[in-house]
Amino acid sequence: MSELEREKVAPEVQDRIRVSFDRQGLMRHLGAILVDIEVGRVRIELPNRPELTQQDGYFHAGATAAIADSAGGYAAFTLFPENSAVLTVEYKINLVAPAVGDSLEALGTVLKSGRTLTVCRLEVFGISGEQRALVATGQQTLIRV
Amino acid sequence: MSELEREKVAPEVQDRIRVSFDRQGLMRHLGAILVDIEVGRVRIELPNRPELTQQDGYFHAGATAAIADSAGGYAAFTLFPENSAVLTVEYKINLVAPAVGDSLEALGTVLKSGRTLTVCRLEVFGISGEQRALVATGQQTLIRV
Amino acid sequence: MSELEREKVAPEVQDRIRVSFDRQGLMRHLGAILVDIEVGRVRIELPNRPELTQQDGYFHAGATAAIADSAGGYAAFTLFPENSAVLTVEYKINLVAPAVGDSLEALGTVLKSGRTLTVCRLEVFGISGEQRALVATGQQTLIRV
Amino acid sequence: MSELEREKVAPEVQDRIRVSFDRQGLMRHLGAILVDIEVGRVRIELPNRPELTQQDGYFHAGATAAIADSAGGYAAFTLFPENSAVLTVEYKINLVAPAVGDSLEALGTVLKSGRTLTVCRLEVFGISGEQRALVATGQQTLIRV
Repeated sequence: MSELEREKVAPEVQDRIRVSFDRQGLMRHLGAILVDIEVGRVRIELPNRPELTQQDGYFHAGATAAIADSAGGYAAFTLFPENSAVLTVEYKINLVAPAVGDSLEALGTVLKSGRTLTVCRLEVFGISGEQRALVATGQQTLIRV
Repeated sequence: MSELEREKVAPEVQDRIRVSFDRQGLMRHLGAILVDIEVGRVRIELPNRPELTQQDGYFHAGATAAIADSAGGYAAFTLFPENSAVLTVEYKINLVAPAVGDSLEALGTVLKSGRTLTVCRLEVFGISGEQRALVATGQQTLIRV
Repeated sequence: MSELEREKVAPEVQDRIRVSFDRQGLMRHLGAILVDIEVGRVRIELPNRPELTQQDGYFHAGATAAIADSAGGYAAFTLFPENSAVLTVEYKINLVAPAVGDSLEALGTVLKSGRTLTVCRLEVFGISGEQRALVATGQQTLIRV
Repeated sequence: MSELEREKVAPEVQDRIRVSFDRQGLMRHLGAILVDIEVGRVRIELPNRPELTQQDGYFHAGATAAIADSAGGYAAFTLFPENSAVLTVEYKINLVAPAVGDSLEALGTVLKSGRTLTVCRLEVFGISGEQRALVATGQQTLIRV
């Protein structure tokens, strides 16, 4: 899907996604924010706070992966017909740099949307002022149910 | 590593692991408990609470994966010489059943411990009373630094 | 699935698997042998030959992974009803030691068999006389079609 | 690494890669061709032949993954100093469509090149005349030794 094809999803799909996101107790507990919903691509932000750290003060890989997983799941969801739901089958994630910054930004992008299965690319960036550095990259398989 | 070879790790290594775990803001924020440290195997428990859910009330995959990742990391750590640290390079996890139960139990087990890299098996079980059901299974690569 | 539950699969299922295996041009081209078919577990052997090497003379990761993938696929197949087929959705494999030996032995074991998806553990051993060393370990997702 | 930064690698590095590729017995046995070496990106082609099939006549996932793994490995190698070698630590690959076509084309692209570890994106396309369809996508971790 090229940049040019990107478009905002229909308001009712946006609503369903926002309602679903708001029901995710973990996203609220972590402080994650659903910032952008496009067709086949969703962006989630996670502001830094001491509750999200690992032993050295960086973002914990668990926090990094949690927002990546949710971003991919909702990206898949934007391409589904009504009355369907999405479950993560599996994902794989490489933590390529220490996850530091004022916030993390997770980007889930649909690579392939099939009838039953969807494959997403997952990327997480550490944001510090104007700086944006890749901290994690992964791939996710989802199933429509 | 067979069951027979399992043994409690030296008290000073246990201490280093518990100190490190206590410094993980995310584990505390989630309510995770480090329950067992053996040579090459660590167990972490996560009692159920509304702050850990996804949209349908199950444990969020992000919570499931976070304790699996930490369990694997500390399992690797039990086999390292002093003054070394461990970082997760990557992991892959399959969510094989809805993560339900009174609590989750993550088990990280070293499959291969090399000079630089360690590979762990990750398993997460949903515990409901006497019942114990596999909800996630994965594989993790760690690096000693 | 415990060791005790392991059993030979029905002769007609064995036949379907052997016919399918024999139709895999790649397995024949590599010289792979289907050595054992149990319920939820299949073993494939690959004798060493110069046609299977990487640049240092070890088995190429591509050969290692190819027999692991086939072993997992047929392991899943043993649990399927008639008239179904199996496709690999994805797999992840760690190459934990140089793949050396007189032959490789790949073991695919079903960890979870669902209605649509099956998850297998993949293990590959290097066999040298009496020695048997783990050279690769992985996890695979398959879909029934 | 943007398109603009892409450049042909130094002739001596190209030579080292071609010598290494020619020593891979498996690549020769499969009929794979090293078609393009750029900085951080390598392309390998695999013409269709009956020796590469799975049971339905498509390219076997083992063949698909083998050229993807080699493409990623050599892509990493283009960024290494002299006298270093590269080993695949692990990879994960999703097979997103039946691998059909006159040939397969594997593209390995470095996403992150660290001192010890490198992470590559792996893509495989099925080529039929003018058509080029994604058949597999993955992610690979490599270590410099």
